[in-house]
Amino acid sequence: MDLYSGYINKLIDELAGLPGIGNKSAQRLAFHLINLPEARVQRLAKAMVEAKQNVRYCKDCFTLTDSEICPICANDRRDHTTIMVVENARDLAAYEKTGKYTGVYHVLHGAISPMLGIGPHDIKLKELMERLSGEQNIGEVIIATNSSLEGETTAMYISKLIKPLGIKVTRIASGVPVGGDLENIDEVTLLRALEGRVEL
Amino acid sequence: MDLYSGYINKLIDELAGLPGIGNKSAQRLAFHLINLPEARVQRLAKAMVEAKQNVRYCKDCFTLTDSEICPICANDRRDHTTIMVVENARDLAAYEKTGKYTGVYHVLHGAISPMLGIGPHDIKLKELMERLSGEQNIGEVIIATNSSLEGETTAMYISKLIKPLGIKVTRIASGVPVGGDLENIDEVTLLRALEGRVEL
Repeated sequence: MDLYSGYINKLIDELAGLPGIGNKSAQRLAFHLINLPEARVQRLAKAMVEAKQNVRYCKDCFTLTDSEICPICANDRRDHTTIMVVENARDLAAYEKTGKYTGVYHVLHGAISPMLGIGPHDIKLKELMERLSGEQNIGEVIIATNSSLEGETTAMYISKLIKPLGIKVTRIASGVPVGGDLENIDEVTLLRALEGRVEL
Repeated sequence: MDLYSGYINKLIDELAGLPGIGNKSAQRLAFHLINLPEARVQRLAKAMVEAKQNVRYCKDCFTLTDSEICPICANDRRDHTTIMVVENARDLAAYEKTGKYTGVYHVLHGAISPMLGIGPHDIKLKELMERLSGEQNIGEVIIATNSSLEGETTAMYISKLIKPLGIKVTRIASGVPVGGDLENIDEVTLLRALEGRVEL
């Protein structure tokens, strides 16, 4: 049914495939875009294409960057003997925002998920192992994958691979979020918090 | 903080202004776009710019189209004596999908909202009045604005403008949605349904 215009339908189709954008949101977005000034639409279109064309993986840690080595890996004041393994660049950003972590990162770009058919070869795990065997003085690998089934599976898998190398492997703590109200927190988290209790 | 790359930050900024896309969704979208094949990103960018450049208002009903007159207004088999007034092109699409309405439309592109500072002059109301006084044989104007405060205000306003022209003005019914469970429906709707009850 060609209710609107072929141009609008094409735009809706292109938008609807994006994550978190269903058919209804794609429609709303398309109409919004059409009502924006043309310069704004051109800017958005250009930003998309330029980002796609210029952004690549950091040669060392595989985060997204527009230079060969990302600013974090290129920074001599960071502790290059500590590597935090995260699932994606957004998780890296989340830890960077704390401003307290001074080591470097390794971005896996995913997590092992047998359900979704994502195996160890589909994430940047081989690259992590190459990096660990290439560099001599790695003191600690902190596994900061998500606290989900996939994240935990990945953490277990990685720790088993790394331990034989004699490198210290740690996992970020899971428990009750700061400011969290106990009554609103799921049972698994509550049990984790109990198991991981520390002496005061 | 330039965590990623200037290109990504720019893309996130451009995305974050769109409706329903906050900062977090903009980040997620941006990373997704970067991981898509370049051809797909180019296609989306092109679809956006082309839609913006080619889509305009129908000369008669002000819906969005890429020709001077939209397919509905250009269709001789439609009943051009009945005009349904809707707030936007999506509402038009919703009625078109029923397949049962054979009249034509008038798209207001908004609703009167004193709260948001949108007055009668900010929507295509003058154009509706010009259309009604220009054409001789309008039999009925069906006001199908939303059943919200703004929609009702707009409906009242329009009906007061049109009645002096001697044209029949109707309003779509409001009541309990088909398949709606009474216990989940708000009181205002329940009262409306009661007031608008029909004899069986």
